Amino acid sequence: MTASLEETAVSYKELADLEDNFSEIEKGIIRQHYLRSKPLYSKRAELVAKIPNFWPLVFKQAPMDIDEYIQPSDSALLLHSLRSLSVTRFELDEDEQKGDPRSVAIRFEFAENEHFEDKVLEKKFWWRQSKDGFAGLVSEPVEIAWKKSKDLTNGLLSLVKAVYNEQQTKVARNVALTALKKKIEGTDISGVSFFAWFGYVGKHVSAEESKRVIEEEEERRRRAADEEAAGNGDEDNNTAEDYAYAQDEDLEIFPGGDAIAMVIVNHLWPDAIKYYFTSISEGSLSDFGLDSGEDEN
Amino acid sequence: MTASLEETAVSYKELADLEDNFSEIEKGIIRQHYLRSKPLYSKRAELVAKIPNFWPLVFKQAPMDIDEYIQPSDSALLLHSLRSLSVTRFELDEDEQKGDPRSVAIRFEFAENEHFEDKVLEKKFWWRQSKDGFAGLVSEPVEIAWKKSKDLTNGLLSLVKAVYNEQQTKVARNVALTALKKKIEGTDISGVSFFAWFGYVGKHVSAEESKRVIEEEEERRRRAADEEAAGNGDEDNNTAEDYAYAQDEDLEIFPGGDAIAMVIVNHLWPDAIKYYFTSISEGSLSDFGLDSGEDEN
Repeated sequence: MTASLEETAVSYKELADLEDNFSEIEKGIIRQHYLRSKPLYSKRAELVAKIPNFWPLVFKQAPMDIDEYIQPSDSALLLHSLRSLSVTRFELDEDEQKGDPRSVAIRFEFAENEHFEDKVLEKKFWWRQSKDGFAGLVSEPVEIAWKKSKDLTNGLLSLVKAVYNEQQTKVARNVALTALKKKIEGTDISGVSFFAWFGYVGKHVSAEESKRVIEEEEERRRRAADEEAAGNGDEDNNTAEDYAYAQDEDLEIFPGGDAIAMVIVNHLWPDAIKYYFTSISEGSLSDFGLDSGEDEN
Repeated sequence: MTASLEETAVSYKELADLEDNFSEIEKGIIRQHYLRSKPLYSKRAELVAKIPNFWPLVFKQAPMDIDEYIQPSDSALLLHSLRSLSVTRFELDEDEQKGDPRSVAIRFEFAENEHFEDKVLEKKFWWRQSKDGFAGLVSEPVEIAWKKSKDLTNGLLSLVKAVYNEQQTKVARNVALTALKKKIEGTDISGVSFFAWFGYVGKHVSAEESKRVIEEEEERRRRAADEEAAGNGDEDNNTAEDYAYAQDEDLEIFPGGDAIAMVIVNHLWPDAIKYYFTSISEGSLSDFGLDSGEDEN
């Protein structure tokens, strides 16, 4: 039996409305922070482009929440081939007024490397709300053009993409799905490559569903405000379950992929210069296999 | 041999100045966010005060970064006796214009309980900068008036306080210090009570030192701007080490206590209602020894 708010003097609606008010403030703050710091990030990109191995050195000091997912072979690839990282709030860039400031894109640029053909890998996370009360970041699998026998995810990533495509078209649903299930069963998830993160999907919430839910909520709020003004109101048809976090966790090859995104967005990206300074003051570049260009004598 | 920026076209000063600009924007954003959401937090405090066990239920869902430090006996105490939690940016409350918005106070209110006499435990973190380039949160040990034989830290917390007092007065420095060293050696740090967090100190940086460093930096920046205007400038006497993170880690009974504070400030506190909803939708209150006030039939 779950605890219930009905015994108390506070309704779900009061708490949920309060949460909406907090969200509105937060969205405004994120928007403002993004727009104000944008010129500084451009300036930073300009400066760090002149510093050899800047981003590999930042990743060397990545927070534990990221570092624990970086396998030795990922590390070698990142350290030798990562050329640039950038974070954008792409819905703001597209439409500052309408876009959700919580949606983010994380873009990696790579040099020629032995593992894949791509020069750019960009993963987008959209802020979505679903019918069942979920609100958070969702994503789509990003394909990587692996070179022959060089797939660090050992086929997992492309299977996830295949399953995702099946689910979008709603035909032949089971072919890739069955293969993926089998593959996941035979895989030690703790040893999976960081690059499997590009396969993260999260909750399945389409743009249309999210838009409808948000509009319905706004409509509900307007009605509630009218009723309250008319002396009625406080009708409360929701339950705590409607607001609790919910997630599709089966078939997720990188559970918590949204949390990793937030660590990149909120720590690695804004604090990159600090991580870089720590990196160069702590050890030799050659310690982790990078040529520093210095004479070692 | 460490890598060096001198080979590149970018000076430390350029990067450090950029970091200063980022900091200024961040401070403004934190200030604005705090002042704008303050009325909502007051409203929330009013509402949740009417909900039995609100804060214990929030802690039940505490993020892993906090939860991993909560021992079973801490948990029992928090769940039965925690009445309220609040976070303030106290330097803004004291002086909105001059105060550093990054300083935070975390205040716990407790009911009568078997472990200590205190009704309120408040831990403050001050944003400070030191001569050797550190910038971050520092704190002071908070004493707890433990009841006889009920000290969950087994004497550690009061020793830390004694050492701190010795260090402040600079007399008889070694009595408590020697005792603390011995105590730490004989303690399995992984089993230490969450309440040892109240002993966190971090880097020793006095308010005076921090004030002086900040003033000197501002002076340096002004001078540099003047020189640049005069066509000189770009003189760079700093090294990467000056900007790298530094920390006093010996004698710290709760390493990473500042990180815990940030998780409380940035997650537990703003997202409390979400954690609460998750808590009541996931399980029975009686699952973790709380009387829900419901008939269980």
